[in-house]
Amino acid sequence: MVVNNKVDSLSYDVEAPPAAAGDTTPQPPMQHHHQPPQQRREVLELHKVSVPEPRTTAKALRQRLAEVFFPDDPLHQFKNQSSARRLVLALHYFFPIFQWGSEYNPRLLRSDVVAGLTIASLAIPQGISYAKLANLPPIIGLYSSFVPPLIYSLLGSSRDLAVGPVSIASLVMGSMLREAVSPDEQPILYLQLAFTATFFAGVFQASLGFLRLGFIVDFLSKATLTGFMGGAAIIVSLQQLKGLLGIVHFTSHMGFVDVMTSVVKRHDEWEWQTITMGLAFLAILLLTRQISARNPKLFWVSAGAPLASVIISTILSFIWKSHSISVIGMLPKGVNPPSANLLTFSGSYVALTIKTGIMTGILSLTEGIAVGRTFASINNYQVDGNKEMMAIGIMNMAGSCASCYVTTGSFSRSAVNYSAGCKTALSNIVMASAVLVTLLFLMPLFHYTPNVILSAIIITAVIGLIDVRGAAKLWKVDKLDFMACMAAFLGVLLVSVQVGLAVAVAISLFKILLQVTRPNMVVKGLVPGTQSYRSVVQYREAVRVPSVLIVGVESAIYFANSMYLVERVMRFLRDEEEKALKANQSSIRCVVLDMSAVSAIDTSGLDALSELKKILDKRHIELVLANPVGSVAERMFNSAVGEAFGSDRLFFSVAEAVAASQCKPQA
Amino acid sequence: MVVNNKVDSLSYDVEAPPAAAGDTTPQPPMQHHHQPPQQRREVLELHKVSVPEPRTTAKALRQRLAEVFFPDDPLHQFKNQSSARRLVLALHYFFPIFQWGSEYNPRLLRSDVVAGLTIASLAIPQGISYAKLANLPPIIGLYSSFVPPLIYSLLGSSRDLAVGPVSIASLVMGSMLREAVSPDEQPILYLQLAFTATFFAGVFQASLGFLRLGFIVDFLSKATLTGFMGGAAIIVSLQQLKGLLGIVHFTSHMGFVDVMTSVVKRHDEWEWQTITMGLAFLAILLLTRQISARNPKLFWVSAGAPLASVIISTILSFIWKSHSISVIGMLPKGVNPPSANLLTFSGSYVALTIKTGIMTGILSLTEGIAVGRTFASINNYQVDGNKEMMAIGIMNMAGSCASCYVTTGSFSRSAVNYSAGCKTALSNIVMASAVLVTLLFLMPLFHYTPNVILSAIIITAVIGLIDVRGAAKLWKVDKLDFMACMAAFLGVLLVSVQVGLAVAVAISLFKILLQVTRPNMVVKGLVPGTQSYRSVVQYREAVRVPSVLIVGVESAIYFANSMYLVERVMRFLRDEEEKALKANQSSIRCVVLDMSAVSAIDTSGLDALSELKKILDKRHIELVLANPVGSVAERMFNSAVGEAFGSDRLFFSVAEAVAASQCKPQA
Repeated sequence: MVVNNKVDSLSYDVEAPPAAAGDTTPQPPMQHHHQPPQQRREVLELHKVSVPEPRTTAKALRQRLAEVFFPDDPLHQFKNQSSARRLVLALHYFFPIFQWGSEYNPRLLRSDVVAGLTIASLAIPQGISYAKLANLPPIIGLYSSFVPPLIYSLLGSSRDLAVGPVSIASLVMGSMLREAVSPDEQPILYLQLAFTATFFAGVFQASLGFLRLGFIVDFLSKATLTGFMGGAAIIVSLQQLKGLLGIVHFTSHMGFVDVMTSVVKRHDEWEWQTITMGLAFLAILLLTRQISARNPKLFWVSAGAPLASVIISTILSFIWKSHSISVIGMLPKGVNPPSANLLTFSGSYVALTIKTGIMTGILSLTEGIAVGRTFASINNYQVDGNKEMMAIGIMNMAGSCASCYVTTGSFSRSAVNYSAGCKTALSNIVMASAVLVTLLFLMPLFHYTPNVILSAIIITAVIGLIDVRGAAKLWKVDKLDFMACMAAFLGVLLVSVQVGLAVAVAISLFKILLQVTRPNMVVKGLVPGTQSYRSVVQYREAVRVPSVLIVGVESAIYFANSMYLVERVMRFLRDEEEKALKANQSSIRCVVLDMSAVSAIDTSGLDALSELKKILDKRHIELVLANPVGSVAERMFNSAVGEAFGSDRLFFSVAEAVAASQCKPQA
Repeated sequence: MVVNNKVDSLSYDVEAPPAAAGDTTPQPPMQHHHQPPQQRREVLELHKVSVPEPRTTAKALRQRLAEVFFPDDPLHQFKNQSSARRLVLALHYFFPIFQWGSEYNPRLLRSDVVAGLTIASLAIPQGISYAKLANLPPIIGLYSSFVPPLIYSLLGSSRDLAVGPVSIASLVMGSMLREAVSPDEQPILYLQLAFTATFFAGVFQASLGFLRLGFIVDFLSKATLTGFMGGAAIIVSLQQLKGLLGIVHFTSHMGFVDVMTSVVKRHDEWEWQTITMGLAFLAILLLTRQISARNPKLFWVSAGAPLASVIISTILSFIWKSHSISVIGMLPKGVNPPSANLLTFSGSYVALTIKTGIMTGILSLTEGIAVGRTFASINNYQVDGNKEMMAIGIMNMAGSCASCYVTTGSFSRSAVNYSAGCKTALSNIVMASAVLVTLLFLMPLFHYTPNVILSAIIITAVIGLIDVRGAAKLWKVDKLDFMACMAAFLGVLLVSVQVGLAVAVAISLFKILLQVTRPNMVVKGLVPGTQSYRSVVQYREAVRVPSVLIVGVESAIYFANSMYLVERVMRFLRDEEEKALKANQSSIRCVVLDMSAVSAIDTSGLDALSELKKILDKRHIELVLANPVGSVAERMFNSAVGEAFGSDRLFFSVAEAVAASQCKPQA
């Protein structure tokens, strides 16, 4: 069947009138009785607007909830399986190690051992450094690189994730806890709070996964994260000026202004031996980073550089025995002591630890999930976001009882893990074993490791988080995204990490709400040579249909935009009528609302349509709707609005609506 | 041109290939060089995807801001006018009274005087009653029915709005202020806080209008307002049990449980004369309400009943001189005393007054705007929401300096105003004059008015806010809207007015976010007898295209749903492939994403498309896009994604995409 824009030149056969409200059964061919055949100028073949098969309320609710909470349909693989097979699958589901473990072979082992040792060489210096970032003793960073990777290798579904402390979560934990408790004056209390916050982070993460609320992390948009990470990286780097310059009395604030003031004011404390050593190693580390970035096969250059720097600088410092270079000092030997007795769930700091736990929990989750997804997509396998959250959450809950602070999948170490050719989560076990050997036997060697080298390692690690090219791309593609990015960046840099994050989330939500409140609405015309009606702004060749205004609505119609919809249509109408008046054309007789892109409608939206119809009726202009989608059609037929529009004002397509309204005898 | 679903039976002419990235100039007819004519099975006439004319960043931003803040284009009427005419128009714009005043005539005056006197007869008893609801002296209610209506008649653009105190805002102000200050123990402080809160309400309202943020009131959806109003009406009615039963020692809490406990516990204070009189007048008032509801021409029956009840009950009470019936008592004569000196902007209550001001401000604004719009639509004129907000805001700021508390357009009185045949805002001036006469000469007459009659008037007024039929309609049409309604209702009833309102707004926002996070995605098929591809769930007769999966995305693609999009497409693909395997059909070779309903895309969305393409490429499945709308096409061509898809993977329509992908030689 053909609906042409030159209606008068064609003749149509009546096949079926548009369906009446709620009528979904096929109808026999039927004549329009009010148009006796001899009077018809042309006959349209009209297609009826269907509605989906009626569902019970319970079924509709179940489907809706399934789509919200189980979009990945995790139980799919259990369908049509014997119960023994189901048990095995469930074991595989909850402990992925049984899945890949059963297919393990020596060839995989070789790759995993190489990868595991490579990331261990990075994890040990980074662990020590990041613990300092969180104002914790360096040994906690090593503890946190031992127990959590072991737990993750049992539960995690990513092959490439390298687990341990990360810079952003360490920074946030450090800055939030230090606001209430000084780590120098009350070290035990500070440790208690850190472990308790880690426990809450784990509980929060596991609950998100268990309640299948994983989509919450999606609300931290990439744009805001770019800004947030960039700002945090600068904050972290600025904090390293303490170690890099050898300043003893450093500000405890994080803001850009405070730190720079402190740096300038304490210039008498600048320590030139430290500065020389720090800058030299920083230059070497940045150089190796560049080498690996230019040639990905040389990934081991930058992966091994931190450990090499630690070894070389420790030897230098041991030979010099200079008192002006501050060193890590005595570290206790031995594996993680239990710390469950340090968790405190009462007293005046509960609110603080819960808040810190949620903040670090969501940040580390965001990083872990993003890293897992990135490498899963590179290697073409799937990670289940909610299951990953449970794995990370359980890992942190267990970690908090074994002297570990908050951990997750680290982007830098996972990248090295991937480059080094890891095949399974066994590389985490290898890494943990290397950390174990360090903890048991090598701790005294760190005695003379200069603190300045840790600062250089941190700066090298976080400098990669400043993504200027990403920000430039945002500016080019989406100005509002760029604004969100800059707001988060400046918020972190000038106010505080929490404010930066809050601003970032608020802007992300505001952007969604703005789009919902002011949806796109376009005037459509016929694209020559087709039967398609498209925006006349986008397709400049599109031709408007005389005396018919076709408006496309490109959004769900909600309470938040229903008034705008009415206003905007009236404004289009006014503009068109002014144009018609000037050009001496006939005025608008019919408004066609193209509903193809209206994905949903609520009760306010339905009221707005009735309202618009009433206003247009008073001006003797007809309002017809074209192509309402399933849920919208269903809802219209369920309410009085469907009846108000009736079967002769609902059309299958814009083309049919135009054809029908054009061949109507003019009033 | 015709694109038929039986591609092989037709032959097409190449007219133009789809446009390359950023290419929007018309192209000459051109041959596909990689397909020599003798090898072509068929030739497609393809239409290129256009992008809107390039705009500068500044222009795009200007257009965007104009759409957000000036969707009604308020300066339209000033275009192409002389400067003298512009001055007159500006005067009309800011003071609508000059517009209608210049065309005023005696016939209009007669209608307005009748309407004004009718609403005065309602406004006087309601003013006294609502002031008591806000824990304020009754005289404040009369003051508030005098100055604000005068100011509104100068500035307001609605002809039908009857201005004065309203029940919900009175209740909220009363309950919020009483939490901090007892109106009985510190009456002067309470009065200060009430005026200051009114001032802040005015500032907030006027700022919303001035900053053109009027759309914020649209976020209180009709569904949540239905629930909120219903709950508030019950709370208000319960509070009236104090007056109706004559209880002296009544709870100062608002919750359902507290009030009922208090009523039962204080049964020894029940006063039978009061109860008899109250129930009798309540019955009469409800009866007159019914009469007017059944026959709108008898609107004056319910409009006059409150004043009649006050007069009759006052006479009865004067004759009886019973000490057991509590009466209003002495009221001061005279017009509004100035109260600017009572406004306090420092001290410990500033936060409370600001909070109360914002809450009552937004609630009274919502009522005022809704009432204004309702009657404007009935009488076919426009009210400018932002200008109305400024008018209401200025009215409240001025009111707070003239002993008035927060006022707005009242629904019940505006309905009476409309029924009584008001023609202009002059009816408000007439009403204010009647109130003035009352204030100057009639105040002693209220001495013996029983308090119980005020309770009966309040109950009669608020009972209409309980909209059971509206709630039932919500249940029928939209279960989620109904849940929001019930949550607001129960929140107000069982916890507090503020909690109820917060819950209502939170659910409204959550609903929007949920829709954005989990957008509709549908599998499409060809509707027989058309070239339209529609959801196979909605149109059960639609036929899937073999080995092509067509997915329609019905939402903007955002950071919040981009991961879901990828997951959902992969799930559709899995289901389709399982089906194909069972039916022994060929597997999917091509996925067509129908982008017609994708109203916008952000950087995360663009990344998700690249991601999806990469995943499908690995499985040797082609991903093509059909009909991206203007802003989406523009953004794709501006980013690397457009290049990744290239000109041969972007199609004008689904039909062309299917035709093109079907006639490709199979790999």
